[in-house]
Parts: sequence; C-alpha cells; structure tokens
Amino acid sequence: MSVTAPLGFRAAAVETGLSPGRPDLALLVADRPCAAAGVFTTNRAEAAPVVVSREHLRSGHARAVVVNAGCANAATGKRGLADAREMARLSATALGCPPEEVVVASTGVIGVHLDMDKVRAAIPRAATGLAWDGGASAARAIMTTDTKPKEMTVEFPVGGVMARVGAMAKGAGMIAPNMATLLAFFTTDAAVDPSLLKSALVEAVGDGLNRITVDGDTSTNDMAVVLASGVAEAEPIVAEGRDYAAFRDALVQASRALAEMIVRDGEGASRIAEVRVEGARTAAEADRVARTIAESPLVKTALHGGDPNWGRILAAAGRSGVDFDASRLSIWIGDVWVADNGQARDYSEETAHAAMTADPVRIRVHLGQGPAAGWMWTCDLTHGYVDINAHYRS
Amino acid sequence: MSVTAPLGFRAAAVETGLSPGRPDLALLVADRPCAAAGVFTTNRAEAAPVVVSREHLRSGHARAVVVNAGCANAATGKRGLADAREMARLSATALGCPPEEVVVASTGVIGVHLDMDKVRAAIPRAATGLAWDGGASAARAIMTTDTKPKEMTVEFPVGGVMARVGAMAKGAGMIAPNMATLLAFFTTDAAVDPSLLKSALVEAVGDGLNRITVDGDTSTNDMAVVLASGVAEAEPIVAEGRDYAAFRDALVQASRALAEMIVRDGEGASRIAEVRVEGARTAAEADRVARTIAESPLVKTALHGGDPNWGRILAAAGRSGVDFDASRLSIWIGDVWVADNGQARDYSEETAHAAMTADPVRIRVHLGQGPAAGWMWTCDLTHGYVDINAHYRS
Repeated sequence: MSVTAPLGFRAAAVETGLSPGRPDLALLVADRPCAAAGVFTTNRAEAAPVVVSREHLRSGHARAVVVNAGCANAATGKRGLADAREMARLSATALGCPPEEVVVASTGVIGVHLDMDKVRAAIPRAATGLAWDGGASAARAIMTTDTKPKEMTVEFPVGGVMARVGAMAKGAGMIAPNMATLLAFFTTDAAVDPSLLKSALVEAVGDGLNRITVDGDTSTNDMAVVLASGVAEAEPIVAEGRDYAAFRDALVQASRALAEMIVRDGEGASRIAEVRVEGARTAAEADRVARTIAESPLVKTALHGGDPNWGRILAAAGRSGVDFDASRLSIWIGDVWVADNGQARDYSEETAHAAMTADPVRIRVHLGQGPAAGWMWTCDLTHGYVDINAHYRS
Repeated sequence: MSVTAPLGFRAAAVETGLSPGRPDLALLVADRPCAAAGVFTTNRAEAAPVVVSREHLRSGHARAVVVNAGCANAATGKRGLADAREMARLSATALGCPPEEVVVASTGVIGVHLDMDKVRAAIPRAATGLAWDGGASAARAIMTTDTKPKEMTVEFPVGGVMARVGAMAKGAGMIAPNMATLLAFFTTDAAVDPSLLKSALVEAVGDGLNRITVDGDTSTNDMAVVLASGVAEAEPIVAEGRDYAAFRDALVQASRALAEMIVRDGEGASRIAEVRVEGARTAAEADRVARTIAESPLVKTALHGGDPNWGRILAAAGRSGVDFDASRLSIWIGDVWVADNGQARDYSEETAHAAMTADPVRIRVHLGQGPAAGWMWTCDLTHGYVDINAHYRS
C-alpha cells in the first residue's frame, strides 16, 4: 500500500520525541535517483523546508523525502533554514546520496525551532529501518491532528505493462487552496520525464488537493511532491500521448482520493459536501464562487445542522466578488431544486433536509451567466473544530 | 437615548407576528422631511428593501424609516420588490408623506416572502404609537440573533449650540465588510447638507462599522442610513469646516461605538480583539492583512482558548494576498513582543497568555514594508457560534 506500493521505494518511521509517544519522522527512499517534481504553498511566510525543497527539486531529480511532524520549522529565520538543510544532509549521509537529492518537509507548530538533537539521532535509525512495506507506517508518522492515515494506490497501463502510483498525505486543519494546504507525497514506478511529471502533478493537485477547504487557512508548509523510480518494466514516458494520459489520470485519481480523505478527516468534521457551480462565465469565476460558498461559516454550520438554508448559499455566492445577476440563479441540494430565478421554489422541507444530511451532501448552483463550471469540497463546522483549535497548540 | 435623542424624531415598535412573542417592526419618523443619506451592501444578491431604499435616498431626503425583523425579504424576486414598495406606501399613508420619503429595511431569514397581512396590520399601529422616547424600543425591535440592543448618543457643538447624533444598529452574525454588514440608523438634529451628510456617513462607516468581522459573511440586506432633522437651534452645516468636522466626528464616534457593541455581541462571542497592522505600503494593504487575520478561524479559535499562538497570525498574514517579506515581520500581543524578524522572541508564555485573555485582546503586526496602518475588530469562534447557526434558521 501507500508510497511503497510502486516498485523501487522503501520507507520507515521512527520516534524522535518531538511528538512524544508516537513515530513522528518518516523517510521515503528510492533505490536510485528519480525524476521528481513539487508544488508548494503560496503563503508569503513559507517555512524553511519549503525553501530548501523547492531549491532541491529545481534539478528535476530526487532520491529521498524526509518528513517530521510536531514542529513546522516555520517562522524560524536563518537557524530554521540551517536546520532544514541539516535534515537533508543527515539523510544524504545515511543514504549515501548528495543532500540536493533529499526533499525536506515539516509539519506542526509554527514559530518553534526544531530540536535538532532529536532529529540527528532519529534520521540514521530511520535509514536502517527502511522496508519495502514501510509505506503504511510512514503515512502514520506524518499525521498531526489527523485521526486517520491517508494513503492510496492506483494501477495504470503503460503500453501493455502495469505501473503504479502510490500516495500518502497529511492534513486536517489549516486546509485551503492554494497550494496544496497539506503535505502529499506521490511515488510511481513508471519512468516519467521530469517536465511531464511536473505538469501531471500540477494537474492532479489542481483537480484534487487544491479543491478542498476545511477552514480557509493556508499553511506555511504545504507541498506535494512526486518521485518516479522508473523501475516498472515499462517504456519511459517522454511525451504526451496515451501512456502519459494514463499516468496523469492515475495521479489525478490518487490526488482526488487523498483530497476526499482529508476533508472527511477535517478537524471536527461530521459531514462533507461537494459544492458545484455551473453556468459561470469562466472556470476561474465558477471556482471562486464555489470556494466562497465552501468556506462560508454560515453554510458550514447549516451543513452541520442538516439545515437546507439555501439563503446562506445565495448570500455567500453574492459576496464572492464575481459579478452575476442574482435573479438568474438556481440552487439544488442533492436532487431537490430549492431555488430558481433567485427565489424559493415550492419544495418539500423534509426532502431538502434529507438531502442536506446525505453523504456527501451535493450543493449545486447555476449562475445562468455562461458555460463554465467549477467545484470544491468542504466539511461542516462543529464544536469539534473549536475544541481542537482553541485548546491544541498547532 | 438612541435615535430619538436628537430633536425632531419619534419612534415606535410593534409586534407583527413575524417573530412571534416580541416587537419586531420599528418605525422611525421625523417631524418634517430630513436631509438623508445611505450606504448599502455590496452583496450581488441584494435584498428588495436595499433596492427600494437606495432608490428613495437618491433625492437626498427622507422622512421615515420602517424596519422589520424575522424576514429579510431577500431572494424574493418581483413579489419581494412589490412587498418592499408596499411597506413604504403603507408607512407613507399612515404618516401623510410621499412613499419616496420612506426608507425600508428588513432583516431575518433569506428566501422567504414577507407575510404582508401581518405587515399591513402592524404599520398603522406603529404610526399611532410614535413617541419622543420610542428609540429604545425601536432598537429592541430590529434585533435578530442579537442578545442586546445597540444604541448610542453623542453630543457635539455647532457654533455655540449643542446638537446630537443618535444611533441604533442590529447585527451579530453574517458580519463582515463591506458594506456595513448590518442595519444601522443614525439621526441628528443638526441641519446638514445632503452631500456632506453622505460623505460623513461614508467616513463614519469606513472607520467603524466596516471594520468588524464576526464570520466573514456579508449580508444581503445591509444598510446604514442617516437622517438630519435640522431642528436643533444651530446654523445649518453647508460646507466643510469646524462644524462639519464636529458633526462628522460625532458620527464616527457613534459608528465605532455601535461597531464595538456588535462585535461584542457577535454570535457566540466570549472575547473580542483589535487587530492592528502597521508598516504596510498602503492603508488598503494594511486593512487587507488585518482582515485576513481577523477572519482566520485558526486565529479566532486561538483567541477563544487564550492561546498566544502567533504562528497562526503570521500564517494568516502570509495568505492575505499582500506581498511582504516575512523575515521583517514583528508581532505583539498586548504589550508582549512575541515575534521579531519573522521568528520567535524570548518572551514569557504566561504573560503572553494573559495578554491573549485581556479585554479587548490587542494584536499588533508590523510588516516592515512602509508607513501605512489599518485595523479591524473581531471576536472569538466558539461552540456558541456553531450552536446558533447550525440549529437556528437565520
């Protein structure tokens, strides 16, 4: 399962003591240098590991990923940058590769320095523990407020040969586009040209991980990274075409599956919803309206109460910044058409309430302005979210 | 007190039955036509009373304001528009003035038609109940999820004569700029030229009511309206100068006081905070950063927990869309300087925790980019907010 399902990857998880009582450092290693690509947070206060990993991935190649939970190494200045570089160097030494081939990621509290003594002790232990079936424990080690590990495998054909995409992610709070608002790592045993790898990753993230919101807060540490080992007995993918499409589709499928897992495990979430906006002038406008609805605290609490309060959906759309004529707007909750021409239809409250408690809830808005559509996944806003974030230093 | 403190205004509140068991319709009437001005919601899905009141205020004059709670008359199409016009007409008939001199406002559930039989029966009763001390009951009648009425009086000199500003507002949820994210009504017995009235109102709203956020949701029904009776024995204010400044300052003071009352009464709020951003390139950028911090669910839950988690403040600033160098950022909580050069200072957690439970909490961020400043008021995010909005159809 997970990131070690594709051939050519091993992983391990060890306890550093940063998050006492559980494994909290993961190492993911390919047998040989891989084509690699990454996308990173758009937050201006990007964390040290984001700076280092972006630098290292510029070559289009990587050999390993080291991730710690419990401390984000964000807002840590020059010392934080030195610590992130040392994490790469420690991993490189243990694995016998150049530090530039190591991707570094951190997640946890912002504004606290890494306890490097703990990290120094842990990385060599992780390197000796690497295993072909280590993916599942790696997926657990990168969790913070997640209640479940998030992992996924997809098979796809390259020529006549099967190859695989494996994936793991963490994320439950501080979830919003863009970028990926979480940590996500993909592996594949297909051989893929680095620039194609990057375009497939951008597409997969754009169509999955970037379409979820828990609280609208974008993290300082987000990244999604893909490594292609090329170990599968399949022809290298060096141009667009059927094989590239199969790989890209597998990556999109994995990204969507992880995205759904993340929003389901959203802090305090008891229910999830798909918000689909149609009839927009452009896809960007559709996405903007969908995101505003998906992030609205009033929509998210109505979702929690199972209340088909479409007036809040309309009000959120109206403040999205997208220009539209409210008198042309239609809204559906599940199959129940609740509003037409911007006003109430004669629907059954009972049926609409049932649709607002479905799994997932499907909210659909038609703007009547044009041909474009967009969508976003969200979860409800509950006591649980307040409890986790009022009293947990994350 | 309230809107009937300035000379020349009477008010009344009656029970329509739209919000059973309490007065829910207010009428505010001037003895003679007033100079008047209004500002309105920017929500694309503006409610019928917003359309009608904007139209009526175009003349720069008004005689009365009629407000109902319990039904927003929003997303109600042509019938809603006809209903809003009929509210103006009913009031005009009862008062003996043209319908164009009546401002109409509604607040409550979106997407439901007004029960006009109830409104038709109520308005004449309100007109017969008008009283010089009716302001306090009017301020109660316009409440929805508010737990307290919001009213205010300020005295100011015009020449050697004292004049007054009176004000009332409602608002607890669906509170965000712009516009005023609530209903607010100001009266004054000074005589003020309509165009000066409008500029003073815009300034007062911009410096008070537009600087608060409870949940980032902008209502479909917001408006702030000012009526100037000119009954005070003071010279008319027809040009900028000392008298205009005194009036404008009184209006700003009233707007700020109402704004603070609203955020204190924010749905579920147990604590309020001022978020001040300095060192920005422009005031607009400072406001944008302040607003992003003030709306961040992670900052609002940390506020609830009294957790001086400045990493969340930094992360919110970083995703505001304003470009800045995170390594130049400083953060204070109250008097505690918690972060400098974008990283932690050596501060006492205990003192910072105490500052994060002060009333109000004062969060100050310096971006180190320029000379401009901005600010916003917010409240914490609690179980109470979830309860009110998951189970109350508002």
